[in-house]
Amino acid sequence: MKLSRLGEFGLIDRIRRKAAPGRGVRLGIGDDAAWVEHPRGSSLITADLLIEGIHFDLHWTSLADLGYKSLAVNLSDIAAMGGIPAYVMLSLGIPANFDSGQVDEMYRGINRLARKHRVSLIGGDTNIADALLISVCVIGNPINQPIRRSGAQAGDDIYVTGTLGDAALGLELLRQKRPRQGRAVSQLLQRHHRPTPRLAAGALLAKRELATAMIDISDGLIQDLGHICTASHVGALIHQEKLPLSGAYRALAGKAIMRFALSGGEDYELLFCATPRHRKRIEKLGKLAGVRISRIGVCMPTTHGIQVLDAHGAPVALKAQGHDHFKKH
Amino acid sequence: MKLSRLGEFGLIDRIRRKAAPGRGVRLGIGDDAAWVEHPRGSSLITADLLIEGIHFDLHWTSLADLGYKSLAVNLSDIAAMGGIPAYVMLSLGIPANFDSGQVDEMYRGINRLARKHRVSLIGGDTNIADALLISVCVIGNPINQPIRRSGAQAGDDIYVTGTLGDAALGLELLRQKRPRQGRAVSQLLQRHHRPTPRLAAGALLAKRELATAMIDISDGLIQDLGHICTASHVGALIHQEKLPLSGAYRALAGKAIMRFALSGGEDYELLFCATPRHRKRIEKLGKLAGVRISRIGVCMPTTHGIQVLDAHGAPVALKAQGHDHFKKH
Repeated sequence: MKLSRLGEFGLIDRIRRKAAPGRGVRLGIGDDAAWVEHPRGSSLITADLLIEGIHFDLHWTSLADLGYKSLAVNLSDIAAMGGIPAYVMLSLGIPANFDSGQVDEMYRGINRLARKHRVSLIGGDTNIADALLISVCVIGNPINQPIRRSGAQAGDDIYVTGTLGDAALGLELLRQKRPRQGRAVSQLLQRHHRPTPRLAAGALLAKRELATAMIDISDGLIQDLGHICTASHVGALIHQEKLPLSGAYRALAGKAIMRFALSGGEDYELLFCATPRHRKRIEKLGKLAGVRISRIGVCMPTTHGIQVLDAHGAPVALKAQGHDHFKKH
Repeated sequence: MKLSRLGEFGLIDRIRRKAAPGRGVRLGIGDDAAWVEHPRGSSLITADLLIEGIHFDLHWTSLADLGYKSLAVNLSDIAAMGGIPAYVMLSLGIPANFDSGQVDEMYRGINRLARKHRVSLIGGDTNIADALLISVCVIGNPINQPIRRSGAQAGDDIYVTGTLGDAALGLELLRQKRPRQGRAVSQLLQRHHRPTPRLAAGALLAKRELATAMIDISDGLIQDLGHICTASHVGALIHQEKLPLSGAYRALAGKAIMRFALSGGEDYELLFCATPRHRKRIEKLGKLAGVRISRIGVCMPTTHGIQVLDAHGAPVALKAQGHDHFKKH
């Protein structure tokens, strides 16, 4: 069967079946990061392969931003397990016509974020290639039990950190190629180019054992909520008017105001579930972590599926959306 | 400066300077694998990025062999530190016209070697791409102190496992495109397609603390010996007639009999140094690990440089050879 027909999830499922967890694997393919044992202790491990022309376009992404983001998306996976990132392996395919200043620029972006989170670059592999390739593997330490996608129960509240849709709207502005200026535009572009991995919030949720399930939003709220629902065997009810939107987003989203917030990719916000008993503790946690945390819905029995209600209580039609290329497993 | 001018080692040096080891990094860029601390214990980590058209050619490499080899070269790096591999992260870029059977075939090769060494596939990232891309990250456990490149001293013996030049001669036969048959040809092709990571020998050397320095031969004996000499601040004297050559190699190498043994890449044999006091113990170790171990020379003061003598004691001219593309760091 052609991969284009088998599709992203078909392929991942196929790989998962072929990679039966071996000894020491507490959590293999199918969450934000793997969780594996050592002789003493355990690690979280995640990897991403970014390919020029598929994942990024050097026409509108600087190499410094690209370096920053390629690390950020992996730190976000560690955040989504409630872990602390420690080390990064970076393998590069570099076009032969690059000069050393360009490589330096990419490392400047990587190092900036690495220093901020005390992550050490420990090695990798560097090659020539036709297109720029960036392969990142991050190793981190779990806090208590890593927070999986699979622990949510019907009745749990559903939360997100930060605001939704900014990065996707920023990318849309770039794609329109109409030069636009102003503070709101800058804010959205910044959200697209330099996403913030929510490490403090993730770590506090794990430390205080408050979340029953967690994922980072890379493919859009609805799609990533779907992963939690599938893994946890629950449905979900989302109140559209509770989705956190930034001022910049409200100013520039235009007619399709909910489109990117519901289905736009690359927010890298945390989506998590928690029992209603913990509402006050989660409110406090947001302040401590320095990030807005919004309660946007509730987990339902699995038969309910995923439903989004508008401000009048009417169901919102959800188109199948999200990223098309094969994704992380 | 263009990368083509800066060159492989210039670029790696540049990256190394930009990636000052952070906390917990016992050994960063510049050896076969990184060695990092956890809250309890430590890990060895290595990565490789293999790119179609640069590192392999699907005209003469099957997908099963390619899968096998992409894991083997990383296991070899763990072997060269004296460690035990445990986990593999595998990220793929797959051309859209591949079918699922082809992906299965690649996994068959990977799984075969993984099962043999009880290595678990724990995750990765799967994408479409124009060319086939394979990014592998292997995590392993050290035994005692990992064996670095930097511990050799003048007077130490120099050893290699297995035989030299087979893989490079095998590749040469493939490149000649003249269909050749026979057992010797098959043996050399097998050595090219399915290199054997010398995990048992590496682990025993670490367990018994017998080696002062070690590396795996990926770029050819002379070039990788150069890495040990640079890191250890020693020179080396190699006796050409002591280089271990297989019967298949002797039968097919023709006139340039020493060329591939000295400078051919992808042997994935271990090259290590040890004090002469340990000669008997190392002899025994070879039997225990089930691999031939040959003493091929001796470490010299650094001013001596690297010299190869022929059977008559005359110096052999060494051309600058080895792989041209940027390499692992």
